[in-house]
Amino acid sequence: MSTMKIKLPYVIFLGDVEDKTLVKTGAGLAKWCGDDVLGQLRLASCAVDLGLTELTLTEAIAKGAKSLVIGVATVGGSVKPSWLPTFVQALEAGLDIINGLHTNLSNIPELAEAQQKSSGQIINIRQVTGEFPIATGKKRRGMRLLTVGTDCAVGKKYTALELSLGLNTAGIDATFRATGQTGIMIAGEGLPVDSVVSDFVSGAAELISPDNNADHWDIIEGQGSLFNPSFSAVSLGLLHGSQPDAIIVCHDVARETISTCPDYQLPTLQACIDLHLQCARIVNPTVRCIGISVNTSSLNQDKREEYLQALEQELGLPCVDPLITGCDTLIKELMMQFYPQQTRLAHAEL
Amino acid sequence: MSTMKIKLPYVIFLGDVEDKTLVKTGAGLAKWCGDDVLGQLRLASCAVDLGLTELTLTEAIAKGAKSLVIGVATVGGSVKPSWLPTFVQALEAGLDIINGLHTNLSNIPELAEAQQKSSGQIINIRQVTGEFPIATGKKRRGMRLLTVGTDCAVGKKYTALELSLGLNTAGIDATFRATGQTGIMIAGEGLPVDSVVSDFVSGAAELISPDNNADHWDIIEGQGSLFNPSFSAVSLGLLHGSQPDAIIVCHDVARETISTCPDYQLPTLQACIDLHLQCARIVNPTVRCIGISVNTSSLNQDKREEYLQALEQELGLPCVDPLITGCDTLIKELMMQFYPQQTRLAHAEL
Repeated sequence: MSTMKIKLPYVIFLGDVEDKTLVKTGAGLAKWCGDDVLGQLRLASCAVDLGLTELTLTEAIAKGAKSLVIGVATVGGSVKPSWLPTFVQALEAGLDIINGLHTNLSNIPELAEAQQKSSGQIINIRQVTGEFPIATGKKRRGMRLLTVGTDCAVGKKYTALELSLGLNTAGIDATFRATGQTGIMIAGEGLPVDSVVSDFVSGAAELISPDNNADHWDIIEGQGSLFNPSFSAVSLGLLHGSQPDAIIVCHDVARETISTCPDYQLPTLQACIDLHLQCARIVNPTVRCIGISVNTSSLNQDKREEYLQALEQELGLPCVDPLITGCDTLIKELMMQFYPQQTRLAHAEL
Repeated sequence: MSTMKIKLPYVIFLGDVEDKTLVKTGAGLAKWCGDDVLGQLRLASCAVDLGLTELTLTEAIAKGAKSLVIGVATVGGSVKPSWLPTFVQALEAGLDIINGLHTNLSNIPELAEAQQKSSGQIINIRQVTGEFPIATGKKRRGMRLLTVGTDCAVGKKYTALELSLGLNTAGIDATFRATGQTGIMIAGEGLPVDSVVSDFVSGAAELISPDNNADHWDIIEGQGSLFNPSFSAVSLGLLHGSQPDAIIVCHDVARETISTCPDYQLPTLQACIDLHLQCARIVNPTVRCIGISVNTSSLNQDKREEYLQALEQELGLPCVDPLITGCDTLIKELMMQFYPQQTRLAHAEL
């Protein structure tokens, strides 16, 4: 199993960023990993505040920080020279640096040198090393749910996170499986499937959700969409390697065209359910869609309720906004579909 | 456009191979690239003969060889030490070495050293270098046909080659577009899509068949199958990047289960047509299947005719074995479907 482990706890580095849209990774970590986050480390001219404890590097180390996580993105994924002194000091103090940017930090001479002298490691989430197997398609034990979508960036990661949390709260053994850089930072491990050579994507996806107990659920973070011509290869490789028993289709109500291909209309939700099920049946003939997860943040409350109710009517499936309405109806549907007898007994006991 | 060019003419290196099944690349080159092939170079203990002119390295150079092409594969894709002296001499004499094996020859110190001292280059077909763009999905001019299949290794490359030849013979401007190592060697250029990072597969595929004249046909070598869970990511990325106007579905009548996943039955041809068309319509709503290409080498002539006729009846499409019956009916169907008026005029003139 070739996953990346992040040493906990950590401090989130925000650098000297000026725009809130560039700290999504840091914000995601603050929301989902509060217990692992000691605070934020900001350079003098930083204009963004995540509202976390303000820490210098020395203070973070004194509090037991094991890693410095880069919580800021830059356009193009490059590293700013102004960040390097902090990174060198962190490495010299034995901290790991967790980097989700495209740039490989180990190629920056002063960081490579600092790493060589210390126990601190540079972990480049986006740089996939080592060999992956060719997928075998062999059935693995345990249950798997994959979040899929009408496009990129429509809430597949957050849906999987909310659902994992909800299932655990309901007493069901479930694990969030991260497949992208922010998900990996949140989970502390995972595998960035979009960085794997295409011949091995499905093989890598098989490693992400290995054999498990029969009643254990892997909740796998989806990537891209079969309907996004830029990234559909990643989506199908992940779908076929995951062998999902269930899918949830994610969508953003404000999205009209494919993010990377503005000439392409988004598919209808029914078309999206159908094609994903059809492709998933190749590896798991009993796969089912258990619901729809929509980012409705662009609607006011009345419109949201109206929209979700109409969608439930149309599709005959529970439709939620996981960050606003929660995931309860998705979890109920999953129980009904996969454990009908237990669900009926539980109802009878009420 | 990031393709690989092979300097012509060349000598085919067969090493000291003992088994004919390991010289498929060499045999393919001998069949398809006779004009570019000066002869074969065999070490003393070589037990396989392609029936080409026997050449030493000195003789090949005297005849004007610009490249030495490794025409032999090994299990696992490694290089045998006994081959190295010949490779060193070839590089020192200024020849390029064309390598389709998985091993990166530039990582072998004595070859790297020889390369540095000479004008000869090591071209590792399987090692993709440089950056690829994210696919845009933008419509390109010109026509495109992609060979797809029920599985890997069912004749997608040979079908594309035969069809390109047939179209050119019929006076239609067509170019074979190679997407795998043997195809690249045969064509002299191309791009091994299975070696591209999954996020960029569709982007690489868009580069393979760039803008062209309105009546020009790119005949693109397909890879894998949407039904092969090991390689479906490569297949969908190539399908979406190619934006095909037409597909031909390839099949091997002797194949019952997926080559890399013996637990998986091959799809029916109808299911294979349907899913490939459905996925292709996302990028080209008017895509059509113009026929079926079957490897029937396992059948005798009577059985072959019976099988192909029954298949034509069932699917309502021309069904051929391109290496035995030729591609004429596929080309007629393509003309009928895409140039109906011209085809009717031509018939009227007869």
